[in-house]
Amino acid sequence: MKKVLVLGAGQLARMMDLAGSPLNMDVKAFDVRTNKVVHPVAPEHIYGNLAEGIAEAEVITAEFEHVAHDILEQCEQSNKLKPTSQAIKIGGDRRLEKALLRECNVANAKHYVIETREDFEQALTELTLPIIFKSALEGYDGKGQWRMKSTEQADEIWQDMADFIAQANSSVPQGIVAEQMVPFDREVSLVGARNTHGEIEVYPLTENHHAGGILSVSVAAPVEQELQIQAASVFKALTEKLNYVGVLAIEFFQVGDQLLVNEIAPRVHNSGHWTQQGADTCQFENHLRAICGLPLGSTKLVRPTAMVNILGEDSVPNEALALPSLSIHWYDKEKRAGRKMGHLNLCGNDEQELAQRLNQLAAILPTEAFPDLASFAAKYQERVTQ
Amino acid sequence: MKKVLVLGAGQLARMMDLAGSPLNMDVKAFDVRTNKVVHPVAPEHIYGNLAEGIAEAEVITAEFEHVAHDILEQCEQSNKLKPTSQAIKIGGDRRLEKALLRECNVANAKHYVIETREDFEQALTELTLPIIFKSALEGYDGKGQWRMKSTEQADEIWQDMADFIAQANSSVPQGIVAEQMVPFDREVSLVGARNTHGEIEVYPLTENHHAGGILSVSVAAPVEQELQIQAASVFKALTEKLNYVGVLAIEFFQVGDQLLVNEIAPRVHNSGHWTQQGADTCQFENHLRAICGLPLGSTKLVRPTAMVNILGEDSVPNEALALPSLSIHWYDKEKRAGRKMGHLNLCGNDEQELAQRLNQLAAILPTEAFPDLASFAAKYQERVTQ
Repeated sequence: MKKVLVLGAGQLARMMDLAGSPLNMDVKAFDVRTNKVVHPVAPEHIYGNLAEGIAEAEVITAEFEHVAHDILEQCEQSNKLKPTSQAIKIGGDRRLEKALLRECNVANAKHYVIETREDFEQALTELTLPIIFKSALEGYDGKGQWRMKSTEQADEIWQDMADFIAQANSSVPQGIVAEQMVPFDREVSLVGARNTHGEIEVYPLTENHHAGGILSVSVAAPVEQELQIQAASVFKALTEKLNYVGVLAIEFFQVGDQLLVNEIAPRVHNSGHWTQQGADTCQFENHLRAICGLPLGSTKLVRPTAMVNILGEDSVPNEALALPSLSIHWYDKEKRAGRKMGHLNLCGNDEQELAQRLNQLAAILPTEAFPDLASFAAKYQERVTQ
Repeated sequence: MKKVLVLGAGQLARMMDLAGSPLNMDVKAFDVRTNKVVHPVAPEHIYGNLAEGIAEAEVITAEFEHVAHDILEQCEQSNKLKPTSQAIKIGGDRRLEKALLRECNVANAKHYVIETREDFEQALTELTLPIIFKSALEGYDGKGQWRMKSTEQADEIWQDMADFIAQANSSVPQGIVAEQMVPFDREVSLVGARNTHGEIEVYPLTENHHAGGILSVSVAAPVEQELQIQAASVFKALTEKLNYVGVLAIEFFQVGDQLLVNEIAPRVHNSGHWTQQGADTCQFENHLRAICGLPLGSTKLVRPTAMVNILGEDSVPNEALALPSLSIHWYDKEKRAGRKMGHLNLCGNDEQELAQRLNQLAAILPTEAFPDLASFAAKYQERVTQ
């Protein structure tokens, strides 16, 4: 029985536990809101505080990158933390992320780090409009972002950003990264794993669709080999540089046949949830295998699979469950508008069948809760029947 | 959150819980040895006694058929028990099982129920040698069975059986069912589900191989349609007669193109474990869907899949985990000779690939622990490459 402690007690720790139990792994979760170690699926069971959790664990990992630095240091001192705190911090700070990309010579959007008004002015001369400004820390899912289309917005945006930086309440100073907006063809991500022996396995590239800055649908299907090789080589470069252990996700903008790194997540990732039904081994199991020193499981695509996030809803019509090859994954969370409550995985024996089923699913699910699913499904069907 | 109580706290309840969590089902298990309701995966968490468990549950089900009758009655009185106690008892008493088969006009081996020496003599005249005598209650995995090849064994076998009956310590009187031994071609089983709405879905027939009376390997692959239809119609007849709700397994002897029922198990079944990786929806999820009134999930074969039981071992070489499409399922049990400790599921894109991987697996696993795997794998490869 391998004892694993996860920093964070959300759905990712939950799904790690469900994937780990068949491997006889005992996964516990540290809830940063209550400062208690809990059962990841039945959090009413409390096992103690962080120090006790660290002492009991054989391996410690994280389900999110915004873990307070003192907690990361405490875990690192135990020599059980995988990946390293350095890798986790890179996922939580765009400045470090950009520095890593530069060091590894990995293609990404032209950018400029801003701390002062002077930097801001410099960014406007170095970069071409439109520019997106993103907060360096905690800037995900559309929060802490500003888009500038015309220089007339400069004063207003700067004022807003300066306020945002001033209000930041973190041990690390907040900052801004200005990025030239890339007119990309689509957004894709690569999820992969590297284990303690340095072995690497990556899943096929996944195509991601967002609504309001939040992931809405991911589709995994056979991909162009050239593109896959390009993504895999970026994965190798970054994870080897970091001596990374665990699952890591890389979000890319695809521009023509080139991939530009958008973001790195040093953890299992929402765009990898399809692997629960669509791959030989799911990302949660592979993360556990990686950090526990086991061989990685095959990451091959079994069938084309789409993942649909359930946002702000705590039920779907039973009719949806009757669709062939549909699986539902609830996170047992209290209902809240826009909250990630669960996801659906839908498979097809080929992309045509998947597209057909996605359209059936879109017809069953309420439009209010899944506003862009029908249009995505229609477009996808059109694309795969060409 | 649907609250389910399972009678029995073994690996089947455990796997039901792991399949139920993504559906937001709260599965608890009643451990008949300790008389406590426990967490099926973390049994150190105790929730109370049976009465409390019954009161809290919305649905009650069973993971084994040898539940004491008073417990079944107590659960049935709550109107929450699915399947019914009648159906569970049939699985635990060969006399009831044979009566059901007769009532439904379902083909099975010629047999005779024995209570007295006169019955025994009568059985010998009615049936042709060889005959197998099986205890009516608790007679599985090779216990309580006698094989007669010659009438010279009659006195000895009768004496042994009479002692066995006399020693029985159950509320229901023990008995013996004599069955004419069938020279069958192979053993197959059908696992299927019927939900509260009377909807039925069955998995493809699985081929089973035993060693020492215990299931060793099950293989699910595309089957002859005629045979599948025959098995499905038996499933329909039996479950409709019982107004059955849940997963039920039927073991058959295949003789030429005819299926004779050997045994019925009113529960999820070892020969259905392959569905965790090889089918659209696994048997554990379909059992929960069935008893909770949800639509059944598709039971289609995704890929040819073999299940290999791990008996009496608490580890396998890491090398096995490196095989593509191999999943391991441990039950977190204390090691004991011959005990079902876990199982391996292995898939292939076609039967040839599955056979190849089975041979690779057999070469990795220790022969002492898996004595018949190599010969099975070799024969299987020969068969599928013809």
